[in-house]
Amino acid sequence: MAAYFDYIAGSPIDPRVIDAMLPYLKEAYGNPISQHKPGQAAAMALQVSREKVAAFLNASPDEIIFTSGGTESNNLAVKGLLTVHDHGQLLASAVEPHSILKAAESLERWGYSTSLVPVDSNGQINLLNINKHLNKYTRLASAAWVVAETGAVQPIEEIADIVRSSGITFHGDATVAARFFPIDVRAMNIDALTICAGTLGGPPAIGALYLREGTRIQPMLEGGPQEMGRRSGKENLPYIVGFARALELAMSERQERFKKMKKLDLHLKRRLSEISDLVIHADLPSRAPGILSCRIDGIESEALLMDLDEAGIYATAGSPCATMLHKPSHVLKAMGLSEEQAASTINFSLSWDTQISEIDEMISVLKPALDRLKAISF
Amino acid sequence: MAAYFDYIAGSPIDPRVIDAMLPYLKEAYGNPISQHKPGQAAAMALQVSREKVAAFLNASPDEIIFTSGGTESNNLAVKGLLTVHDHGQLLASAVEPHSILKAAESLERWGYSTSLVPVDSNGQINLLNINKHLNKYTRLASAAWVVAETGAVQPIEEIADIVRSSGITFHGDATVAARFFPIDVRAMNIDALTICAGTLGGPPAIGALYLREGTRIQPMLEGGPQEMGRRSGKENLPYIVGFARALELAMSERQERFKKMKKLDLHLKRRLSEISDLVIHADLPSRAPGILSCRIDGIESEALLMDLDEAGIYATAGSPCATMLHKPSHVLKAMGLSEEQAASTINFSLSWDTQISEIDEMISVLKPALDRLKAISF
Repeated sequence: MAAYFDYIAGSPIDPRVIDAMLPYLKEAYGNPISQHKPGQAAAMALQVSREKVAAFLNASPDEIIFTSGGTESNNLAVKGLLTVHDHGQLLASAVEPHSILKAAESLERWGYSTSLVPVDSNGQINLLNINKHLNKYTRLASAAWVVAETGAVQPIEEIADIVRSSGITFHGDATVAARFFPIDVRAMNIDALTICAGTLGGPPAIGALYLREGTRIQPMLEGGPQEMGRRSGKENLPYIVGFARALELAMSERQERFKKMKKLDLHLKRRLSEISDLVIHADLPSRAPGILSCRIDGIESEALLMDLDEAGIYATAGSPCATMLHKPSHVLKAMGLSEEQAASTINFSLSWDTQISEIDEMISVLKPALDRLKAISF
Repeated sequence: MAAYFDYIAGSPIDPRVIDAMLPYLKEAYGNPISQHKPGQAAAMALQVSREKVAAFLNASPDEIIFTSGGTESNNLAVKGLLTVHDHGQLLASAVEPHSILKAAESLERWGYSTSLVPVDSNGQINLLNINKHLNKYTRLASAAWVVAETGAVQPIEEIADIVRSSGITFHGDATVAARFFPIDVRAMNIDALTICAGTLGGPPAIGALYLREGTRIQPMLEGGPQEMGRRSGKENLPYIVGFARALELAMSERQERFKKMKKLDLHLKRRLSEISDLVIHADLPSRAPGILSCRIDGIESEALLMDLDEAGIYATAGSPCATMLHKPSHVLKAMGLSEEQAASTINFSLSWDTQISEIDEMISVLKPALDRLKAISF
């Protein structure tokens, strides 16, 4: 039996979402900016989807900018909101995703600066540190609501309040958080928010940036009048329709999914506790259920993951980005872990559709694999 | 009977392309950068697709950067290839798409400059003008191979030769040209080329930028290691697989499609010649078959198009972008047409699957509509 534990990196598209998309793949092909009937039918479908995405966030439809996914939304937010100023500083934390940190590096080459707020051993941002790092040059702050690798939840509303009360624009990344928490951009008092479909049972490579009405942004993709000139290029209507459907389902099933993931997480934790020397990272009561990062000191997780893979158990070591680059995860490093500890880390991410039996299967493979690796290393 | 004549703005996805995509929508959901089996299966499908796209262009797989479509490819090319220099000039023509011209405007705000080469009354670039506009500050030149509105074909190979022999980077836009002509980036001697799936029976919102090996580029979407760091963000694997399939079909059916479009174009031209005072724009022997822009002086095309739309005939006035913005087409303006002439312009774009009977149906609606409008206007 195969079991998949890498849902944050890649998730199946909900069959109900595929059903919603199919007519827009097979039949509707008008360009939403064309004035004729097929174009206007596409424009209508686009608008209905935009309204659904707005409803998911308690935003206005005109505040939604469709993008090609979380990476584009994050780049658009960080580059687009900072470069409307001639100079200035970006405030971010050391555990932000690569799409924020790499964008910040480019901004530095263009004469902007970045101030990285450190995190504690749980990967959490201390609010006092925010205040300490804000200065008169700060123009933008960005923080992910949930850290994808560890499930650590940041105090996003409090961060937003501190930042915005200083007159600074705030961008949040809810790519992972949208799996777990209801989102109300009005109540949260933020300027911009990244969401994407891939973590919510929607298709990959489609996302949105919520942008508060009246907020100035320098677009990245320029050209036609799409997205009110804030993101040009022909709209990906089939995926946008699927995205909207996925968000509808996520809203109506959120509580149920959360409850399932909580139950699965408890079971996973209980079973992992049978393994001696296993430490779960950032294991606070607030941790997003079903995202679990742990380490077994003295074990190389790459070797362990190969054993699991052989047996049809699919988990991951740190972030896939870091693994591919053979670098230790910057998140674990920021939490104070040594390179050795980071290299002994294994991550599990579950779906609401994960079965208890899959977790048990994984444990039954993990235990002998660990015994074997321990025997080799002594 | 409805008849659609706006295939450049929006085309149906070939059912064979949808068939290729479906398994990647329904089953395969591994992240190509994940190391486990589902991830590696996705990575393999990505690589196979990359090889097919490369084969379409006679490029190497590593020279292909997947993007979210023509607009992104054009923005990445123009911004990314110019901003690796601290300053410098972009050379482009006055009939380039908005994705080039708007990107150029942003580059000007960032301290770069643009030199726009004028075109003749057919919208064609005169090679002598290229030489005249090149100077020691020019770092990049960009030209669309085929003008989407009129079907005018630019002397792209000659432009590339002039530009590159001056040591300047050359980017071509083959978004429309790929419908008609075989592409060999080696023989063409160019540095970068935009293509997209939407004009070739593939899905919308997926494209690629060919980038010659060793060419430096500043990425726009930064983050993970995808596309060798030149375009981060999770790959849109279902669409990439569909894109590759569409290109395979375009290669094997190119001659047949071209022949069909040529025949349809001849018929369209012959039938339009029955209408007095109708002038076809840029009607050179080289015009891309099935892209036809024409005007009937004294007639407002918006009124005419509404009559056609009512009868199920779907054509367009100038570019959809320009129409939506209620501006005269910049292409027609650059060709020397007056605002009145631009406002009396109607564009038809055909597919290889267009039927002769659809053209006849269109003409049978067009004629009485014209008579009615002429009667009103006198």
